[in-house]
Amino acid sequence: MLRTRTCGELRVEQAGETATLCGWVDSWRDHGGVVFIDLRDRYGKTQVVFHPEVGDDFHEKSRTLRNEDVIKVIGTVTERGKDAINPKIETGKIEIKVSELEVLNKSLTPPFEPGAMELPGEELRLKHRFLDLRRQNLQQAMVLRHKICQITRDYFNNLDFLEIETPMLGRSTPEGARDYLVPSRVHPGSFYALPQSPQIYKQILMIAGYDRYYQIARCFRDEDLRADRQPEFTQIDLEMAFVDQEDILTLVDGLMSAMIKGIKGQDVSLPLPRYTHAEVMEKYGNDKPDLRFGMELVEITALGAECDFGVFKNVASSGGRIRGLNAKGAATKYSRKDIDGLTAFVGDYGAKGLAFFRVNEEGLDSPIAKFFSADHQQTIIKSLDAEPGDLLFFVADKGSVTSAALAALRGRLGKELELYDPNEFKCAWVVDFPMFHHNEDEKRWDAEHHPFCQPNDDDVEKLKSSPGEVRAKAYDLIINGYESASGSVRIHSPKIQQQIFDLLGIAEEEAEARFGFLLEALRYGAPPHAGVALGLDRLVMLFLGHENIRDVIAFPKTQKASDLLSGAPAEVDAKQLRDLFIKTDVPPMK
Amino acid sequence: MLRTRTCGELRVEQAGETATLCGWVDSWRDHGGVVFIDLRDRYGKTQVVFHPEVGDDFHEKSRTLRNEDVIKVIGTVTERGKDAINPKIETGKIEIKVSELEVLNKSLTPPFEPGAMELPGEELRLKHRFLDLRRQNLQQAMVLRHKICQITRDYFNNLDFLEIETPMLGRSTPEGARDYLVPSRVHPGSFYALPQSPQIYKQILMIAGYDRYYQIARCFRDEDLRADRQPEFTQIDLEMAFVDQEDILTLVDGLMSAMIKGIKGQDVSLPLPRYTHAEVMEKYGNDKPDLRFGMELVEITALGAECDFGVFKNVASSGGRIRGLNAKGAATKYSRKDIDGLTAFVGDYGAKGLAFFRVNEEGLDSPIAKFFSADHQQTIIKSLDAEPGDLLFFVADKGSVTSAALAALRGRLGKELELYDPNEFKCAWVVDFPMFHHNEDEKRWDAEHHPFCQPNDDDVEKLKSSPGEVRAKAYDLIINGYESASGSVRIHSPKIQQQIFDLLGIAEEEAEARFGFLLEALRYGAPPHAGVALGLDRLVMLFLGHENIRDVIAFPKTQKASDLLSGAPAEVDAKQLRDLFIKTDVPPMK
Repeated sequence: MLRTRTCGELRVEQAGETATLCGWVDSWRDHGGVVFIDLRDRYGKTQVVFHPEVGDDFHEKSRTLRNEDVIKVIGTVTERGKDAINPKIETGKIEIKVSELEVLNKSLTPPFEPGAMELPGEELRLKHRFLDLRRQNLQQAMVLRHKICQITRDYFNNLDFLEIETPMLGRSTPEGARDYLVPSRVHPGSFYALPQSPQIYKQILMIAGYDRYYQIARCFRDEDLRADRQPEFTQIDLEMAFVDQEDILTLVDGLMSAMIKGIKGQDVSLPLPRYTHAEVMEKYGNDKPDLRFGMELVEITALGAECDFGVFKNVASSGGRIRGLNAKGAATKYSRKDIDGLTAFVGDYGAKGLAFFRVNEEGLDSPIAKFFSADHQQTIIKSLDAEPGDLLFFVADKGSVTSAALAALRGRLGKELELYDPNEFKCAWVVDFPMFHHNEDEKRWDAEHHPFCQPNDDDVEKLKSSPGEVRAKAYDLIINGYESASGSVRIHSPKIQQQIFDLLGIAEEEAEARFGFLLEALRYGAPPHAGVALGLDRLVMLFLGHENIRDVIAFPKTQKASDLLSGAPAEVDAKQLRDLFIKTDVPPMK
Repeated sequence: MLRTRTCGELRVEQAGETATLCGWVDSWRDHGGVVFIDLRDRYGKTQVVFHPEVGDDFHEKSRTLRNEDVIKVIGTVTERGKDAINPKIETGKIEIKVSELEVLNKSLTPPFEPGAMELPGEELRLKHRFLDLRRQNLQQAMVLRHKICQITRDYFNNLDFLEIETPMLGRSTPEGARDYLVPSRVHPGSFYALPQSPQIYKQILMIAGYDRYYQIARCFRDEDLRADRQPEFTQIDLEMAFVDQEDILTLVDGLMSAMIKGIKGQDVSLPLPRYTHAEVMEKYGNDKPDLRFGMELVEITALGAECDFGVFKNVASSGGRIRGLNAKGAATKYSRKDIDGLTAFVGDYGAKGLAFFRVNEEGLDSPIAKFFSADHQQTIIKSLDAEPGDLLFFVADKGSVTSAALAALRGRLGKELELYDPNEFKCAWVVDFPMFHHNEDEKRWDAEHHPFCQPNDDDVEKLKSSPGEVRAKAYDLIINGYESASGSVRIHSPKIQQQIFDLLGIAEEEAEARFGFLLEALRYGAPPHAGVALGLDRLVMLFLGHENIRDVIAFPKTQKASDLLSGAPAEVDAKQLRDLFIKTDVPPMK
């Protein structure tokens, strides 16, 4: 080893010891001819001191050092004088009086300094990721990610799970998102696909008798990217045989508890809360509510039908819904102009308007208050548990629009009004998802999760009569308003699987071509089985309280799916394409 | 949970307990109206018994069961009578007297039975991998693989290594093998490449200050496949900063020791032996000798020049070498016809002939013995440490042919003569590899490992004068004749890196296009660093003593890179290709 100690470990107890440190020059200063350098590595910083009396050459060399140079120093660990103690760093009570210096590598002047307070734009940082990754922020993220993986593996290993690798070069089974394809050189005109998840393979493993499987698996989706999506992402993937829904929920409860204990040192009371999909849709308007605060939606459709406000009356009489929420104590926090802003905001979710009332001692105050009798006003106040000083909002529209608009409004108000502790970590399960949703454009049923989901035992007979009412044994773990895990009990009966395909309009030959090998496997003794996958990147992000998923991945891609560091994707040699029996087919620029 | 116990855990101590088991029907037999079933899961087998007196319906149902059906039984754990004990299975002292039976899923008659002694061809098994994976053999392999990964992670985690994920969608840097390419939808005409290794990314991590990195990483090489190669494979990948070669060797010594202890329960004495490349080439003829036995090569070129055997004389006088080996005690084990077979065998390695001598009390016995004086015969006997009953072989050719032919012959003789214990696990390092080899076809120097390898400190100045003599800080771990790990100290100086590119004839713009981001990173404070990668699949294979790498991978590909289970690779929709701006370009069949 070139060093005997890291830059984070020396304390007063080591005073007098001769230590060899290696690291990066983090800062450089000259006090009356003495050179002080903060030497940095991933473990911390240590002040190293070059006194002129040690030797002229040597001291002179220390004067040529610049930030981000890599050096090795040998010296004596020395207790600092009381006035010189730096309480901000853990090694702040000592320094190294250097007796030998070796410059291991010089650095050009970096385009930005990892320790700088003001950072340049993300693009420059991604291009120089080797510098960006030196930032404490990113180092913490990498360490936390490592720790979460460790906790996860320990947890499953202790429960007799087997970590089993599934292929990256698989078969394209167009389901949901677009596949990334890989042309084959050995089979001209054929392609592999990178996995969107190990779904089918893990089901095969259950059929093969590996009753407890897990994997921290890379997955790929060629989607248009949002801020919190990456073309390649990592999931904690698991599957069990001879279990039902509750076993998986309990298992993941234990994992979350171990993570929260291990990372945040907090105890979580288990089981985590379970809500039905219908319940959260009704109370919060979406299936991944942030449960760190209340502000539940309240329906006043019946009242709306009776009042004199035309908009409410019309909606109520045409089968729509009128729902609202109470922004406690916010009456004076939102001006009329702010509320116009909120109206535009809910407009993005399809709401044609946003009714509001300020609550005062007398009743409701609003341009439309006059359309509501004193009785109706009191009913509204009572329904929304309102007090003077509260601000009430209502959306009247078809049901799905009230849900979407109010869920978004709730999320925004919760944040703006600081209704929760950003460090809190609130997990809950949403269960009993609908099995199908009706695809209005194509006039058919689509699977809500995927077509391998087991219907609830009570609902199997509704598969034919009323598919829209069939609930699935499907469950999502939500954390602070994010879907963080998703899973289901799988169909193990070839007969039910066929029924589902029929319903989804997946013809036999299509099913055979796409999932034939799973269907075949199901015929040879498939045990009941269930599983779940947790989004690792998102978990790390949530534990760190970051909002940018690129901050928790060592080498992320941009929203245009580029790796700015390596320049991928890039053009390749013509010969490579010939070998793969493909040509590019790019339309000419107009 | 559907079950209270697995099929592997019940013992006499549980007699009297009511247990619920789930599993697969492994065998079915009727003894005088009583149905006996061996129920199987991955933990073992348990005998479950259906007595007619428990209920007619119920007993009748048990008669309809067939192998590979999945059932759940509830019954009483019962100690077997002395005569009924089955010592072959761990649960052999008990059985379950069944009181309830549920058929969880029927199985069609499988194309082969996982428990059968005689298995069908590998193709049928790969196609029905879900059945094949039920075989004990493959289950053991998956469990061992899991365990090796666990030992590996524990080892590195305890040493403060960080597990960091590197991208799968990277940039094509044609180096060695062919890349698998992935067309980009967002950047028409551009491609990602799947990584042949995380090499460049792990070096970037070192430059970024993550001084101890590891990852169990999937890698891809689109090569023509040999029996022990797969298009996607897994390596234990690691890198350290502020270290030199010996630190990496010591680190891996510790890992191997932990694995051998954990898997085989054996203590290994450390450090593992280190041999120079020159030494093993001289002693064994190749750089990955099987060290479980001796049989070193011996040179007799000087004697060949003096003898009367024309072939030897000519080779000796024209700069060739005459080398041989001693197959101890094998004089009577190889007939003349056998030796003709060996001659043909070494012919595959370029040897134009194979001289042999049987050793007897008088001297050497061979058709060519007459060309060797008694003195020469005694010299040969002494040089090869021969005794009566030994069989000596010689190849006279240019040096590289003697090496290749005799290394192959040594491997074959060692196996045929059973010179080693197949369960032994013999690890050693080969160090001081040549930095370059001369590409005779293209009249240029190629990198022996890769172009980021640091030359030995003593040899840097030979880079210009005699590249062929430059040794690299490169090292391979060999186990039982297989290269099992390979690594090097990397160049951290941009200047030396440039010198190497110059020597390899990699022009500046080419280097910039291919490795530009690494070269750029090296300019901003790269620490000295080194690393290694171990082939996980091969390690598992070696620990199991298997010879087929497909037996240690859950879902392997064939030698034609096909996944027979899923049918990958396959044709895809025209729309998918259009979205990716490519077309297939398959020449018409002739």
